[in-house]
Amino acid sequence: MAVIGIGQIGASFALAARRAGVVDRVIGVARKQTTRDEALGVGAADECTADVVEALGDADIVYVSVPVGAMRGVFEQIAPHLPAGCLVTDAGSTKAEVCRWAAQLLPETVSFIGGHPMAGTEKHGPAAASAELFDGTTYLLCPGRAAQPVTTRLESAIRRIGAAPLVVDPDQHDTILAYSSHLPHLVAVALSVAIARSGIEGIVRFSAGGLRDTTRIAAADVDMWRDIFAANSEAVLAATRAMREVTEEFIEAIETGDVQRVESLLETGRRFREKLYASPVGVDSSEGEAQDSD
Amino acid sequence: MAVIGIGQIGASFALAARRAGVVDRVIGVARKQTTRDEALGVGAADECTADVVEALGDADIVYVSVPVGAMRGVFEQIAPHLPAGCLVTDAGSTKAEVCRWAAQLLPETVSFIGGHPMAGTEKHGPAAASAELFDGTTYLLCPGRAAQPVTTRLESAIRRIGAAPLVVDPDQHDTILAYSSHLPHLVAVALSVAIARSGIEGIVRFSAGGLRDTTRIAAADVDMWRDIFAANSEAVLAATRAMREVTEEFIEAIETGDVQRVESLLETGRRFREKLYASPVGVDSSEGEAQDSD
Repeated sequence: MAVIGIGQIGASFALAARRAGVVDRVIGVARKQTTRDEALGVGAADECTADVVEALGDADIVYVSVPVGAMRGVFEQIAPHLPAGCLVTDAGSTKAEVCRWAAQLLPETVSFIGGHPMAGTEKHGPAAASAELFDGTTYLLCPGRAAQPVTTRLESAIRRIGAAPLVVDPDQHDTILAYSSHLPHLVAVALSVAIARSGIEGIVRFSAGGLRDTTRIAAADVDMWRDIFAANSEAVLAATRAMREVTEEFIEAIETGDVQRVESLLETGRRFREKLYASPVGVDSSEGEAQDSD
Repeated sequence: MAVIGIGQIGASFALAARRAGVVDRVIGVARKQTTRDEALGVGAADECTADVVEALGDADIVYVSVPVGAMRGVFEQIAPHLPAGCLVTDAGSTKAEVCRWAAQLLPETVSFIGGHPMAGTEKHGPAAASAELFDGTTYLLCPGRAAQPVTTRLESAIRRIGAAPLVVDPDQHDTILAYSSHLPHLVAVALSVAIARSGIEGIVRFSAGGLRDTTRIAAADVDMWRDIFAANSEAVLAATRAMREVTEEFIEAIETGDVQRVESLLETGRRFREKLYASPVGVDSSEGEAQDSD
């Protein structure tokens, strides 16, 4: 297996897949020497290189986990060199564009299945990787034109690394993720920026878990999120406008002393949050996945 | 000690104070029979009653932990019956109004020190209480006109239950808490409402820790937060308007494809969050307080 972009997700996939006996030899690709060293250090790869084409060799699986904005370039680069019959899959946070690029750029001699593991933390790099990262999480898949046996094989591999595969249409993926992941991220960042601008010193002493949890994911990788907001701009904008509207309602209700309206907003939020994790839907209600972020 | 409003905080204070040998006998007050039974069940009180005046007896400490909106009424009710020389303290989430009410309503024969433990979870009731709830947290105090020896005594008691006392001016408290606690709460609720309105079914399967953590505190008690937003409306509005402004900036930057501006907002948020828990300030950077909410 070649892992192009062997950061936290790529290295974790490699570790988990090796542990499960799904893959044997792993070649990791990273531009930075420190990342390559880290990947080797945690045992995620047998070999590392900065050369994408060299890494391909006769790989049966090519796992592309680079920020969405770099995905197109990687596809263009690998397309002429992909071993016939290999499976190409990605771990990009948006799927519509990525799947379109794959259909346009990758040769028909290979299979492409878009992927998006619902795992990862606000940390990054192979040093933050773990073979257990996918345990109890959902792993979204967009098989597109891939043949059923290839999809079945990937689904089985995903189960063996501890995750639950779930097939979804790429456009639907992006619409839903705008609410389930991109908006929460934007909100965590906006909240952090608003608090930063207040200039209050030593605010942690005046806070407990609320501040910590609502802002946690704001610490995540900037490049990755810049690319996500660009790649899924329409859906992210729609979700953010919906958020702005609720914020406006809160402001209006507090300004006018409309206690009932404040209470009604609080109650809607409370009910939604209580239901969210109330009925375990397979693996997803796990309280164990204590550090996932996107 | 009399604990008026023996919910999660009141019951936890009783448990912790008993464990530390700070108080002996505890009389709990709650309107609901189930709450009284729970408080007795978890060993937070020796006796429970619905009658505030009856609970006072010859208490040396009167701990008032009711929602801020109910505080004034409780002060009016207890004022004529407070044993001379006792210490009255509260656990209300805002302090300016509460300290004003105490100064107006409580007799000069007693000492009042406003309090606000930076602890608590999104759960409520004595069943969610714990003697360890205050471990490693800050406990804010507004001594006002209380004599220094009384304050010193309360500070010592707070240290013995595992928290770090921090004296703060009531107005300053409310201004800071608007950013460190009230805005994060409003944002978590607004985010939950926006997602609820999207009508997406089974969204948890398309999410990881980001959604879970950013929305967690939205599950908290509605009455308590309605009162907080009312009691601290000006500061909450200022903070919420600041949040709205950042949200607007995000929308504009994504709409116009201004990638640099998106990146700059992400970078500001990331830097703020990374610094927030980077330098341990006493007890407050503890990652152990995994469930605190306000």
